[in-house]
Amino acid sequence: MSLSILVTGGAGYIGSHTALQLLLGGYKVVVVDNLDNSSQISLERVAQLAQDHGPNLSFHKFDLRDKPALEELFASEKFDAVIHFAGLKAVGESVQKPVIYYDNNLIGTIVLLDVMASHGCKKLVFSSSATVYGWPKVVPCTEESPICAMNPYGRTKLFGEEMCRDVYKSDSTWKIILLRYFNPVGAHPSGAIGDDPRGIPNNLMPFVQQVAVGRRPALTVYGTDYGTKDGTGIRDYIHVVDLADGHIAALNKLSDPSVVCTGCEVYNLGTGKGTSVLEMVTAFEKASGKKIPLVMAGRRPGDAEVVYASTEKAEQELNWKAKYGIDEMCRDQWNWANNNPYGYEPCASTD
Amino acid sequence: MSLSILVTGGAGYIGSHTALQLLLGGYKVVVVDNLDNSSQISLERVAQLAQDHGPNLSFHKFDLRDKPALEELFASEKFDAVIHFAGLKAVGESVQKPVIYYDNNLIGTIVLLDVMASHGCKKLVFSSSATVYGWPKVVPCTEESPICAMNPYGRTKLFGEEMCRDVYKSDSTWKIILLRYFNPVGAHPSGAIGDDPRGIPNNLMPFVQQVAVGRRPALTVYGTDYGTKDGTGIRDYIHVVDLADGHIAALNKLSDPSVVCTGCEVYNLGTGKGTSVLEMVTAFEKASGKKIPLVMAGRRPGDAEVVYASTEKAEQELNWKAKYGIDEMCRDQWNWANNNPYGYEPCASTD
Repeated sequence: MSLSILVTGGAGYIGSHTALQLLLGGYKVVVVDNLDNSSQISLERVAQLAQDHGPNLSFHKFDLRDKPALEELFASEKFDAVIHFAGLKAVGESVQKPVIYYDNNLIGTIVLLDVMASHGCKKLVFSSSATVYGWPKVVPCTEESPICAMNPYGRTKLFGEEMCRDVYKSDSTWKIILLRYFNPVGAHPSGAIGDDPRGIPNNLMPFVQQVAVGRRPALTVYGTDYGTKDGTGIRDYIHVVDLADGHIAALNKLSDPSVVCTGCEVYNLGTGKGTSVLEMVTAFEKASGKKIPLVMAGRRPGDAEVVYASTEKAEQELNWKAKYGIDEMCRDQWNWANNNPYGYEPCASTD
Repeated sequence: MSLSILVTGGAGYIGSHTALQLLLGGYKVVVVDNLDNSSQISLERVAQLAQDHGPNLSFHKFDLRDKPALEELFASEKFDAVIHFAGLKAVGESVQKPVIYYDNNLIGTIVLLDVMASHGCKKLVFSSSATVYGWPKVVPCTEESPICAMNPYGRTKLFGEEMCRDVYKSDSTWKIILLRYFNPVGAHPSGAIGDDPRGIPNNLMPFVQQVAVGRRPALTVYGTDYGTKDGTGIRDYIHVVDLADGHIAALNKLSDPSVVCTGCEVYNLGTGKGTSVLEMVTAFEKASGKKIPLVMAGRRPGDAEVVYASTEKAEQELNWKAKYGIDEMCRDQWNWANNNPYGYEPCASTD
């Protein structure tokens, strides 16, 4: 009998890739998503890519903050674990509209924790972020590095982690894994699913891809005078399929009956390698055969200089390690972009 | 035309005393309270104590998290400012039931901020706590001292402060004052309103008072080997009427048209004086003429040794200073206890 996993925000970028890996791994997947910043088409494609496993995917369109709807779902199905992706994720927007971020991300998490507890479902994988390392003084960032938050988005992740730790401390029958994502990029190698942000992309690669397909004229590089090899900021980019597999590894740990008490543990999901903005652009140009015009600009307030992960803990305790390098990330990002220049929408939308 | 103030949690201990001082100061007061941990009788007595001003008090029984109810209230009345007391406040319970604390305190605050913004009401006094100073390395605690949280209750206060700061940063037309309360004790000198916690009291003075009236056999003193004058923990006790007046001072600052931009400012509300547990018990014995039997016990995990406030900022910027000392605090605590041995309930309840 296959395990049934509730995936909140499962129509989104990381959510849809994780849903696919779960289906391929033999899990039953139930997605809840309000489709505020995602498309149901992603799930149709996930079901197609999963082939024979496709029928094991089901979808419920509602907002996680809708407690009666979530209660009804938990009353109708028994979940072995929950992977909680749902939430808003744009740093800049969170500074402009903090209450919307607190509302979506904190209330969503509180309602979920409450409903899970009342239905005796106490295995959770929580989507955190490397943003909680702020401007790290020492790299690589280990799970023991000091954490802080630089903006409301980061605070919702930090608070979410704290809430999970408190829940475990109050009831040790919970098993919770907090995953701190570094910079997810790329797409499924099929080119059928990928990142499809609404409006102006917040992150490097969706922006690069939109330049490559002609939707935007040039990429603005923020900060060219950092103390790095080429002066641009360094991040730890991770292929989204690797990231998705990290969630399967986390579920395996939560479900392993030989692990008496997982407690509430945090793991970095990164590659452990730092790549500069210019290196990433060059790799994308090579993969796509497209020239990416650049506009060099000053540093953006709040951006750290160098952030990359220590991957040791995840390797040792989750038995997981990223397989893909930046060439594959860029290849698959371009494959997705080239097949879907306007994302899941059939044609250009105004943004 | 008098200013209209929404007081959330206005039936509670600090809320009811503040409602009274507001009425006496000529404000119109609208209380929202779910009465989960308070009694409507407190508000009847507030109205009586306010005499001619009594009719300026109105009460709505609903939960702050009930957004449609709050929307309806804001649609029906225009508020000049909000004082936000509503929330759960028992440290020990918050460790046992963290989600209930996050649910009540964070969702309540998020819903309030959201509804206030959408109705253009952007003046807020937020109830924070000296708990955000954790175990202070240096006393007195100034508003610049490092802040942290030692338990879920403390985290809800810390997160609440952070949310308020983010809201102000996103929209500088907000004026927010965060008040960090030290240890409120005492009662209105009339003896008609006071602290009436449900169940076993979490704080020293309600416990002492219940011993004095015979509801409990003895006071347990946690920690007698601290590096303090008599070995017991030192706190900054503040008369609840002084504390209530601190809110009027905060409102005055928020409403002062000569203050161009208050922004989001934090103030300690304390006396600046540290008093040990044994000193407090002695003062209460003197005020009440009752002997308080003591049981000496070990330190309670999480309790700090010495915490007291720097009051300079509130004195200078709010033009407010506590007037009462521990003798008045104990006199009024006893007066309330003696007149209302079972709080607002007419007779003994089981707890």
